[in-house]
Order: sequence, then structure tokens, then C-alpha cells
Amino acid sequence: MKVALLGCGVVGSQVARLLREQADDIAARVGAPFELAGVAVRRIDRPRDPALDPALLTTDAGALVTDPDVDVVIEVIGGVEPAKKLILEAMAKGKSVVTANKALLAQDGAALHRAARRNGVDLYYEASVAGAIPLLRPLRESLAGDRVTRVIGIVNGTTNYILDRMDSTGASFDDALQEAQALGYAEADPTADVEGFDAAAKAAILAGLAFHSRVTSADVHREGITRITAADIANARAMGYVIKLLAICARDDGHGVGVRVHPAMIPRTHPLAGVREAYNAVFVEARSAGRLMFYGAGAGGAPTASAVLGDLVAVARNRLAGVSGPSESVYAALPVHPMGETMTRSYIALEVLDKSGVLARVAEVFAEHDVSIQTVRQEGRGDDAQLIVVTHRSSDAALAATVRRLRRLDAVRAVGTVMRVEGEDTA
Amino acid sequence: MKVALLGCGVVGSQVARLLREQADDIAARVGAPFELAGVAVRRIDRPRDPALDPALLTTDAGALVTDPDVDVVIEVIGGVEPAKKLILEAMAKGKSVVTANKALLAQDGAALHRAARRNGVDLYYEASVAGAIPLLRPLRESLAGDRVTRVIGIVNGTTNYILDRMDSTGASFDDALQEAQALGYAEADPTADVEGFDAAAKAAILAGLAFHSRVTSADVHREGITRITAADIANARAMGYVIKLLAICARDDGHGVGVRVHPAMIPRTHPLAGVREAYNAVFVEARSAGRLMFYGAGAGGAPTASAVLGDLVAVARNRLAGVSGPSESVYAALPVHPMGETMTRSYIALEVLDKSGVLARVAEVFAEHDVSIQTVRQEGRGDDAQLIVVTHRSSDAALAATVRRLRRLDAVRAVGTVMRVEGEDTA
Repeated sequence: MKVALLGCGVVGSQVARLLREQADDIAARVGAPFELAGVAVRRIDRPRDPALDPALLTTDAGALVTDPDVDVVIEVIGGVEPAKKLILEAMAKGKSVVTANKALLAQDGAALHRAARRNGVDLYYEASVAGAIPLLRPLRESLAGDRVTRVIGIVNGTTNYILDRMDSTGASFDDALQEAQALGYAEADPTADVEGFDAAAKAAILAGLAFHSRVTSADVHREGITRITAADIANARAMGYVIKLLAICARDDGHGVGVRVHPAMIPRTHPLAGVREAYNAVFVEARSAGRLMFYGAGAGGAPTASAVLGDLVAVARNRLAGVSGPSESVYAALPVHPMGETMTRSYIALEVLDKSGVLARVAEVFAEHDVSIQTVRQEGRGDDAQLIVVTHRSSDAALAATVRRLRRLDAVRAVGTVMRVEGEDTA
Repeated sequence: MKVALLGCGVVGSQVARLLREQADDIAARVGAPFELAGVAVRRIDRPRDPALDPALLTTDAGALVTDPDVDVVIEVIGGVEPAKKLILEAMAKGKSVVTANKALLAQDGAALHRAARRNGVDLYYEASVAGAIPLLRPLRESLAGDRVTRVIGIVNGTTNYILDRMDSTGASFDDALQEAQALGYAEADPTADVEGFDAAAKAAILAGLAFHSRVTSADVHREGITRITAADIANARAMGYVIKLLAICARDDGHGVGVRVHPAMIPRTHPLAGVREAYNAVFVEARSAGRLMFYGAGAGGAPTASAVLGDLVAVARNRLAGVSGPSESVYAALPVHPMGETMTRSYIALEVLDKSGVLARVAEVFAEHDVSIQTVRQEGRGDDAQLIVVTHRSSDAALAATVRRLRRLDAVRAVGTVMRVEGEDTA
């Protein structure tokens, strides 16, 4: 079994190392010996693991993926191009593909699945979501006889690290980001993580598998964490909440699904509140299985490489058996509903005038929009007078309209933090 | 695709219901319609789900499993016989088998795997361990490219419920057991659960998959929870520990594995300490993946049926593709070392004479056996004088010898609770 490796960065170098160090085990588990046929890199002359045979390196990825000797291509370059072109070329030549490329899968997974089916090859991508945590295989196979109702979790380690530091040390977003960068948890350009693009791609992949429907990143409502302040974190803490960036994929009451990524307050007693540092954790709720949780390292070279090699063994077994694994399952074709139709609860902090009748006026605005208030707390006096409102569940559109109306209210000096509240099952 | 169901109790009735209610989804996911060909029961005349067609019921399980029309047999009778005979008959006739039978798999899984291989059929058994929690498939497939070093967890819901009630209410073992029986968490004869047989069977299955070796229930060191007293629970609580029945499968420093089920004290801050009621949770530690946790409902009709149906979909897909899934992987053939060689830490409560020199004498006994003391606490005076010792890691045999010697010491009036301590990574 000959394997071509595209990319030799954080993940690729670990894949190469494990293929070498665990060659005997992997061969025994597959039933055939493995050989690394080549490693495509951008620059040959980078410093690399001295145990990696330099003769394997090539800058000609196109030639490597079409090499007639190669059986399986592992793609860990990331990004949409040239990864997509290379994967399609490999598949056209009958090679199976293992990839960790969440951005590509979430943007144009359909094209990859189509090509896999047409060429009778495998497309496996466990490593694209939540690193080493087995999540896609359980969704795709273990729960294939059940009806998944909701997937909710922390799928981005960088933002969890930043929010955890802000919560535990009182740091500002900028300071926590810098610390994450210094430790290698965040990239020099952190946009993909802190603006929620990475989590949104993962949410699209999870939703597609969970609901047997096609979901792309464009379908995902996405908000990042860059505007969260130390004051927000402190306010949340004072109310017994912690702020997490959540990915939420839910079947709604009608026949559709909602898929969203945004920061949310969750009670400190919720199991997701205890997920620290750069860890990931995902709840999967299914009608018969109930609530399952999966927890582990969501990123990093070795954990992601572990997921890649698990897929590689599966793909190799399939090739030896002359079959391909389960193909894309999108028969349910559930529509993705817009965020406005999603039912959520919200925390809203209002700076208000310190005079009588303000609460009544504010309550009236909520009532006019059919948004029911669960709790309201008055804090401070004079220029510091605040109203902290937590609502019951209502449509996100109604909440947005309420906030717009509140901004124009004379009694309201400013609308402060508006944040969704999750993890409480009260209506 | 025609399915025969053996057993229609707590799990079987839910399998029949889900096969009916989710027929369309399952057919779409497999790519072929499903039909329940028959349900083997011991007594036809029991009250049953009125939606189950009585014409499907039969007491002749032997005829059902050899029915030429049947493609897949689901076995949820439990127990070794007649389940084993029926499964082997079904396989001999070319039928694939999905089973939840942990006792049979742990006692004689090799015979079943051999029969599956010889007849070119599938043997799937996700439901045999931890109910709906996808655990076997991740071990067998997702981690196939990694090296699992340890599996540790709570795999028996009944005993977890009992210990949780003892911990949270101060109840005695007998009272907590009665409550569990009243709620249906424990059976009228609770032996299999409270003596650890059920957990030991699951540990054997987990260890076999994790270490690619053959492990049977006879290889598992097993201790139950029947001797745990309210005082033990209270003492553990006072020291910041909680008592859980753990299943632990670990690769040791040499080239072997240890597999054991016993009650242990774990710190209240450990994630397994927070697993309440009848829930299950399992940590899987692998060299590259790091520490993964799986959590969910470990038993119950619907969750177990969910796991059975997931396997059924996989088996059906394999049959349509004309292949069989991954077979037993025991190439590593690691020996199972006896409990005496296992390195553990222990909590030991000694009732001692209240006079000077006792601590020195006790410490000497530990030293003579090469067991290093981590902490020692003196409590009470006079007839209540106690020494509470927590040791560092040492071989279980050395600990046992130490305890035997302590019992004969004049200064020791009695050896009270001796319990292993887990979940702290200090040496």
C-alpha cells in the first residue's frame, strides 16, 4: 500500500513520523505493508525531522498524486486551492483520499463526494473536525440507526483557550490572543479562528452528517469572539455563567435545521463550562441514544495525525477488500433555516436613565415583540443605572427587533452586551 | 434485507419499535428496504407492544436463525446459552450477526470471531459495552492508527447509581441497592452488576480491542462493591475522594497488559467523579490522540437499541457491497499480567493502639515491603485512634503483603478499609 502525503507542516510531519514509527502495527492491522511514496512540500530546503528521508520530498504535488504506484493520498495542506484540484486529480486516477481539510469540505464537499462516487474511491475526513476525537465516524456509522436531534459543542481550541484565559485571569481579548499566539495555539493571522470561520466549517460538516443533508459554510450563521470584553466575561461570571464559542446544529420543530456558531453564555454547572484551555467537547443528542459527550484534544499535530491514520487504515482495508466505505448521505435534504427563525434566549445589558417608569417602558418593548422576560435585574444608580435582562426562548428575529427598538428608547442611554444564552433547558 | 430478532425484552422490544418507526430512514441510509422476518421469544403470550405484529413471534429460535430468507440476526437474549448456539447456527448459514451479548463475547468471543471469519459474515457488538456510547467502533477503527495505552472508566450503570446514591444521601449499600431495584436500575438478582461480573466482561472486550490481543473475562481481576460501607464513602468524602467502580485496561511498562475491575477512590476533581446516577463514561488514552472521553447512557432499552441499529446499518451496507467488516485483530497477542504485578496506590485505614511508637512500627512494615507512603494521618484518641495511610504506586502484591503483615502487628487493633486510589498522576 503506497501513500502520498501532501503537506508536511504541523500535521503532515506527525503523519510521516507515525507512519514510520508505527509501520509494523499499521501493517498488521491493515493486513498489508505500508510505504510512504512521497511528500509534497512547498519548499524542499526547510529544516525538517532528520528521520524523514529527504529523497521523499518533492515540490511537484501534481506528479505525486497521479503517480501510478500511489494507492492513497493524504491531504493536509489545508485551504481550498490547490488542495481541491489535487484531490480531484488523485480521485480521477483511482486513488482514495484522506483529508483534514475542513474549509474545503465545508465549502465544496459535494464536489469531492461526487468525484469519490464517480471514481469508486474513498473520501475520509475524521481529522477535519475536533482533531483526534472520534466524532464523524460515530455520527456517520454508530448513530446510523438513530435520529440525531442536536449537536452542540466547542470545536475550536484557539478561541476556547482565549475565552478560558479571559475567564480565569481577567485578561482582555487582545492580551489573551497574544498569549495564545505566543504558545502556538493561535496563528499570526488569527482571523479564521477568532471570527468563527473555522468553527463554522466544522459546524457545516457536523450538521451534514448529523442530519443527512447537504450543509455548507455559507449556510452557517457565524459570529466571532473579537468583540467580547473583560467586562462581558466578568458580568457573565457574576451571574453564574461562562462565555464559550459554541457550534450548534439543531433540528427545529418544523422540518428544517439551524446551524450556527456564536459566543454564548452557559451556566457554570454545564459540562461544556468545564472544558478548559484548547480542549474540544461536543454533545450529540439523539432520540434513542440520548445525550452523548465526546471530549479530547481538538487540534495539534499528533492528535490530528492520529485521526488521519485511523482513516488511512480504514481506507486501506477497503481497498484490500475491493470496496469503498459509506458514501455521502444527504437523502433527508432538510432545509437550513435562517438564524432569524432560530429560537434562542438572550442576555441583554441596558444602560438606562435612573428614574421611575424605565423598567415598565423597557418591559413594554419586550412585550410588543412577543419576547418574554425570564429575569430582570436593576443595578447601580445615577449614571451607572443598568438593567440586565435574560429572556425566555423566542425567535432570534424578534430578539433583534427588540434590541433595535430598545436602542431608540429615550429611557435607554445605551444597549451594552447582547449575548445568547444556551445550555439551560427551561423554556 | 430481512432481519431476525432473538429476544424481545427491554432491548429487543426497543429494537423492534425502532426498526418499525425508523424504517424509512434506515432504508435510505442502507440503500435497501428492511423487513423484520421474525422475533424469537420464550413465551408468546406475554403482554407486548400492541404495534408489534403477533404473527412475527415464534418460540422456535432455531428455525428462525436458519430461515433461508434471513440476512442478519440480531441477538439480544443475553447469557451464554442458547445465544452462542443460535449465533453459530446463524453464521453457519451465512447470516451476519449483531449482538449486545457482553457475557458471551467476553467468555468465548474467539469462537464467534472464528465462525464469522470461516463463514465470511460480520460480527458486530457495539451495544455490548456502554450502551449507546460509540466506544468499540472508535477503538476498532478511529484509533486503528494509534497506540492505545489505557482505557479507564465507569461501564456499569447499576453500580454507579448505587455508589452515587450512597455518596449523595449517606445511604447504606443495601438501601441504595433496594432503591436501584425499585427504579429498575438493578435486577432482582443483582449479582452480575454488584459483584463486577458485568463490568469485567466489558473490560475484557475493551482490552481486547484496545490492545489487539485476546482477553477473556477469566483474565480480568474482579472485585465488586458489596462490601463498601457508608463509613467508607464518608471517609473518602472527608479526604476529597469519591468511590467509583472502575474498569481499567492498561498497557504496563513491560510488554503486557493489566485488566481489572474494582472499586477505587478518585479525587472529586477528576472528570469521572462527576459521572452521576446510571451514566457511563470512559477515558481512552492513546499515544498520539492524547486523552479522549466518551460519556452517555450506558444502558437502557432505547440507548442500547440505538447501538444495535447502528451496527445493523453497517452490517447491511457490508452485505450489499458483498464484503465483511474488520475482523478480530489480535495480532499483538500481549500477555495479561496478574493483578499482583499491577502498580497501584492504596488507601489503608488502621485502627491502632493509642501509644507512642505505633506510627514508627507501621511505617517500618511499609518500608520492609518497599511500599512508599505518600501521606499518613493520625485521627482520634484512645479506642478510636486511627492511622489513615495513602501510598505511592507499588505492586499490588507488595501492598497485599503489607496489609497481611499489618494485620499481625500488635500495635494494630484492626485493618479497616483497604481501597485502591486512582486518577492521580503523581508517582
